[in-house]
Amino acid sequence: MRANLHHLFNPESIAVIGASAHRGKIGYELLNNIITFGYKGKIYPVNIRAGEVDSILGLKPFQSLEDIPGPVDLALITIPAQYVADAMRDCIKKEVKACVVITSGFSETENIKGEQELVDIAESGSMVLLGPNVFGVVYTPVNLNASFGPTHLLAGKIAFITQSGALGISLMDWTIAERIGLSSVVSVGNKADIDDDDLLEYFAQDTYTRAIAIYMEGIKNGRRFMNLAEKIVLQKPLIVIKSGRSQKGAKAAASHTGSLAGVDNVFTSAFKQVGVLRAKTTREAFDWARIFHLEKPKGDNVVIITNGGGAGVMATDEAEENNLHLLDDYSYLEDVFKDCVPPFGSTRNPIDLTGQTGEEGYKIALRAALQEERIHCIVVIYCEAPLTDPSQVATFIIKEVEAQRSKKPVVVAFIGGTRSEDAINMLNEHGIPTYPEPERAMDALGAFYRWVHFIESEKKEKPPETLTLPAKEIESIIDNARREQRLQLLESEAKQILRLAGFDVPGFWMGSTKEECVRAAQKIGFPVVMKIVSEDIIHKTEVGGVRVGISSVDEVREAYTDIMTRVRKKYPDATIRGIIVCEMVEKGVETILGVSSDPQFGPVVMFGLGGIYVEVLKDVSFRVAPLSRRDAQEMVHEIKATPLLYGVRGGEKKDIAGLEDAIYRLGLLAAETPVIAEMDINPLMVLDKQKGCKVVDARITLQPKED
Amino acid sequence: MRANLHHLFNPESIAVIGASAHRGKIGYELLNNIITFGYKGKIYPVNIRAGEVDSILGLKPFQSLEDIPGPVDLALITIPAQYVADAMRDCIKKEVKACVVITSGFSETENIKGEQELVDIAESGSMVLLGPNVFGVVYTPVNLNASFGPTHLLAGKIAFITQSGALGISLMDWTIAERIGLSSVVSVGNKADIDDDDLLEYFAQDTYTRAIAIYMEGIKNGRRFMNLAEKIVLQKPLIVIKSGRSQKGAKAAASHTGSLAGVDNVFTSAFKQVGVLRAKTTREAFDWARIFHLEKPKGDNVVIITNGGGAGVMATDEAEENNLHLLDDYSYLEDVFKDCVPPFGSTRNPIDLTGQTGEEGYKIALRAALQEERIHCIVVIYCEAPLTDPSQVATFIIKEVEAQRSKKPVVVAFIGGTRSEDAINMLNEHGIPTYPEPERAMDALGAFYRWVHFIESEKKEKPPETLTLPAKEIESIIDNARREQRLQLLESEAKQILRLAGFDVPGFWMGSTKEECVRAAQKIGFPVVMKIVSEDIIHKTEVGGVRVGISSVDEVREAYTDIMTRVRKKYPDATIRGIIVCEMVEKGVETILGVSSDPQFGPVVMFGLGGIYVEVLKDVSFRVAPLSRRDAQEMVHEIKATPLLYGVRGGEKKDIAGLEDAIYRLGLLAAETPVIAEMDINPLMVLDKQKGCKVVDARITLQPKED
Repeated sequence: MRANLHHLFNPESIAVIGASAHRGKIGYELLNNIITFGYKGKIYPVNIRAGEVDSILGLKPFQSLEDIPGPVDLALITIPAQYVADAMRDCIKKEVKACVVITSGFSETENIKGEQELVDIAESGSMVLLGPNVFGVVYTPVNLNASFGPTHLLAGKIAFITQSGALGISLMDWTIAERIGLSSVVSVGNKADIDDDDLLEYFAQDTYTRAIAIYMEGIKNGRRFMNLAEKIVLQKPLIVIKSGRSQKGAKAAASHTGSLAGVDNVFTSAFKQVGVLRAKTTREAFDWARIFHLEKPKGDNVVIITNGGGAGVMATDEAEENNLHLLDDYSYLEDVFKDCVPPFGSTRNPIDLTGQTGEEGYKIALRAALQEERIHCIVVIYCEAPLTDPSQVATFIIKEVEAQRSKKPVVVAFIGGTRSEDAINMLNEHGIPTYPEPERAMDALGAFYRWVHFIESEKKEKPPETLTLPAKEIESIIDNARREQRLQLLESEAKQILRLAGFDVPGFWMGSTKEECVRAAQKIGFPVVMKIVSEDIIHKTEVGGVRVGISSVDEVREAYTDIMTRVRKKYPDATIRGIIVCEMVEKGVETILGVSSDPQFGPVVMFGLGGIYVEVLKDVSFRVAPLSRRDAQEMVHEIKATPLLYGVRGGEKKDIAGLEDAIYRLGLLAAETPVIAEMDINPLMVLDKQKGCKVVDARITLQPKED
Repeated sequence: MRANLHHLFNPESIAVIGASAHRGKIGYELLNNIITFGYKGKIYPVNIRAGEVDSILGLKPFQSLEDIPGPVDLALITIPAQYVADAMRDCIKKEVKACVVITSGFSETENIKGEQELVDIAESGSMVLLGPNVFGVVYTPVNLNASFGPTHLLAGKIAFITQSGALGISLMDWTIAERIGLSSVVSVGNKADIDDDDLLEYFAQDTYTRAIAIYMEGIKNGRRFMNLAEKIVLQKPLIVIKSGRSQKGAKAAASHTGSLAGVDNVFTSAFKQVGVLRAKTTREAFDWARIFHLEKPKGDNVVIITNGGGAGVMATDEAEENNLHLLDDYSYLEDVFKDCVPPFGSTRNPIDLTGQTGEEGYKIALRAALQEERIHCIVVIYCEAPLTDPSQVATFIIKEVEAQRSKKPVVVAFIGGTRSEDAINMLNEHGIPTYPEPERAMDALGAFYRWVHFIESEKKEKPPETLTLPAKEIESIIDNARREQRLQLLESEAKQILRLAGFDVPGFWMGSTKEECVRAAQKIGFPVVMKIVSEDIIHKTEVGGVRVGISSVDEVREAYTDIMTRVRKKYPDATIRGIIVCEMVEKGVETILGVSSDPQFGPVVMFGLGGIYVEVLKDVSFRVAPLSRRDAQEMVHEIKATPLLYGVRGGEKKDIAGLEDAIYRLGLLAAETPVIAEMDINPLMVLDKQKGCKVVDARITLQPKED
């Protein structure tokens, strides 16, 4: 964690530079929130015209920082942009440890230079800087509300980081109305210094924070975020609302991989890869966040208790969509619940107590469920009825949950009017996650289980990975192309690199004369394939530059002449390196592996089945490189066409282990060779089980050199 | 509309049979709601022990119906199940026009006979019967709350029909809290007499109802519902929450079509076909419903006005998912909004007024948007900020919207706390659909436009359809199979039927001897295909019963012997009809057309591309038969593999018009020949444009005869 970041959240003294005695001014609201929310440390209002007033909000104002008698840990700056730099210089003199620049008018209005100045000043004194262009910071464990948002937040265990100011403030208000308890709110604004990653590191070790929610529009360094997230997720769930899903990402891309990846697919894959929960809306994010202070369930058996059959059906639908496991041992369930359920109800999970059940019915059924070891998680759904009292039902639920020893997760949904709203608030205030719709309860539970299962699978022992690539040899092939000022490697070069990375590349020889090709074919053995090699020709087949199934010396000679004639006719000026003679690969399932470069995440690996599966059906999967062996496995099984690899219509099962290994190696190669911009192995022929995967054709493009 | 249904909603007098003076009894709550909600007609409490009390809730009680001096239009019955039939007989005597049986204990507890008795009694006097097992009926235009749900509902334009009791009641409470105005609530319970269809007919002509929402778990007659819905949707939107999405539909099915259709896919397709909006949750249904009292927009140009960039981005994401068109003529937008937006805001839609905008800013921007003819629909998003007043923003919005002449739809989202909640309620009370999340506003707008576009496309002139099938000739082929007690038609029979239905079936002849096959091949012309014909052999290829590419008389003879030998070896006891000799069909795109029978909807047509597209990728589309030509068109374009029909990788564009015609004909054949249980045309070879589609193989299975 960064030095001094601690003081942003736990200052012993605060100066508000630009404090104001006028209600409605940010300098007033900020100071007022700090005082009113109950901050216990020293508070110093600073105002250039401090001499004109005796007090601001009951505190003695100071004309400048240096006038303050004691040390200042945290400075909040809310003065016009042109004075901010000077104020920050004063902070450095005063040895302030953290400062928050509320003021806007920096990089968001193209004032890049002004913002850089602030960063330089902060660095000169190793002070951390939050902002500029933020609404402040809140940390409830020390009653710190240094924001100009609402004053009275509900303390709790969720840390909320937001890149959007207006949205962030309105969500603070919303959390109050929804009884969502927060440990912290941080407005990150322009992220000139402190960014998401710094804050993640802080909250990862913060014992007052149980779940972290981030509203994010962009990310500076995707891979760094992933590395950090990967560690944090094992401790605490990380929920990200990444907006801008519809942005098409207009970057031109030569390869399939690049054009298919798109910005948003990469985010989704990256989050999945490291166990980050991606919420679609802020509401969903907080629905999820509030469930995470519960103890982890000891197993997957979920039981739903309801008084409404319809609500039960809807919960079941949503459970299936969230891959939740509703306990379905019906004779067991009948034993457990038969005394709670009237004859026209149901014990078949959902446990339907029917509309005629009273408050007492919930108590009995919930107690029974809590006592059973085979039930790992309980969802209670209550449809408001005129003759029962929602608050009474809530009270019973709270009592039963608090009395239980096992700390089994209980999630609740109340459907109804204002009486139910009150009951929902009561339950949430008692730490029982409660929602106004059964679907939201199930959706939150789904996120809970996704996180739990991710951790479990991460904790499984993994074989130590000792695979290393011969970096030097790969580099020398690339250097050669660089010397010739080529970004596009020749097929033979690409294949050599892949062979060095451990791929099974069938025999190939370059021939620059007819007789060299004949000798190459004889070495390889018939039948062979012959292909033109030229950096100027991308679509070899279309120009007659490829011949397959060549089975004699005579045919080699004939093919050589034919290829050269055709190519020369179409591309009289192309630099022709010769003809590559390759072993014919037996028929298997054609797949495509690709790598493209994402501006935020770096190399991204794509997998799909050949031809129309990728081109028309867009049936592909992605992961950010380097990827784990489990990622490779998931990639193979994430596409719809996966069953084709298992053999359909009498086909043999293919070498799936070999394919996974190839994907894994490609991820490693991409991550360790950042100079590669794009790779396509198209096709990688996946043969029958244990027969391996063969690289039939390959293309590698280098990053343009930066000068 | 059914006679007397009118009186269920507009009775001039009501009797409550089982009225009670004891709070907490249904007979009390029911009567109390009728009185308190302000019903103006005559109200008669009926109680067997009426002699013992002077009044019930201030009204004179009667011991029996016949004691009541005047006529009774509507009777509500809430007495124990065993007395209900007698009470209904009294109703018939009294010439009651409509009765509601609240009492449960009938078909839902397997008391089928008791329920049938009620139906018979009602029919004997042409009285309509709602229930049994319902919580009542509400109709706000006449202040009728004849339910034991909450008392004070908000009057409005939405009719809500619910199959679930507990859920329905709790949703009534919820509509009050959410300020959702209702014209009616009907609990349909066991649907012994009055069902969804009757109610739809009523609400279709009801001027007080603008949108209809139905919570449905099952449906009696899907096709009847569709026919009705199709008409209603042109007048009023019909929103259905159909729960039970996850029910797998355990029916066994021999064909692809049957196994792929599944119960839920058919519902989705059927609803889409007739323009019914399917909501996933009750919340979504009401979110949608409340938008429909707005005037229809005059075009597709949507503009979003916001004070939060983040909220704008999220709205944009959701707009794209809902196929909404955000106006993107940026220079025009800049002209319109440049005076409303500060320099660091944006006029590029979302119009970002920035967090620094005040209440006034919204007024100016909204007014500008309302005045512009090129803007057809406006979304206003407000993120609560400490220094602005949500209720003031709401007041400005209400004023501007009410002052506008064009009646352009305005939809609003306020994100924030309790102050925003109050403002949301205020806006909703003024008829401006307002939501606490921008995504919900966009989602509702999406439903609005889906409905509007459906109506527009329905209103386009359609060519009169004069296609008729030769029913008699088709019937005679089927009768022949019936006589032989076969459910499975022979390939030749199936092909004959398809030919009669106007399909292009390439030449085929049945031969029962070697020489007949030779003559058949000579008539057809080489090359030909030969296939075994036997009702006992389904998988012809697997047993060696098929030979393709036969190009001479000698080959025909050889193939005949070979097929017979192989088949006889595998199936020594099969009845063999002979060998069918067929024209070889040139290569095109292989598609599959299928028909299966759905228990609720009847024949369902499926379309997909051949082989793995259907079997592995499940890339298929469905419609309920008969389907329109537009349905056929949509089916072709709904699957992911559609581009293959347009020619990829240098292929020609295929005969898509011919394919659509084939699907249309299959729908007609299925609808007009209900005795057919299943059909598969596999493959239907779709040739190049204008070259048609050819039936290569076909299979038809008949319904088992009911005795």
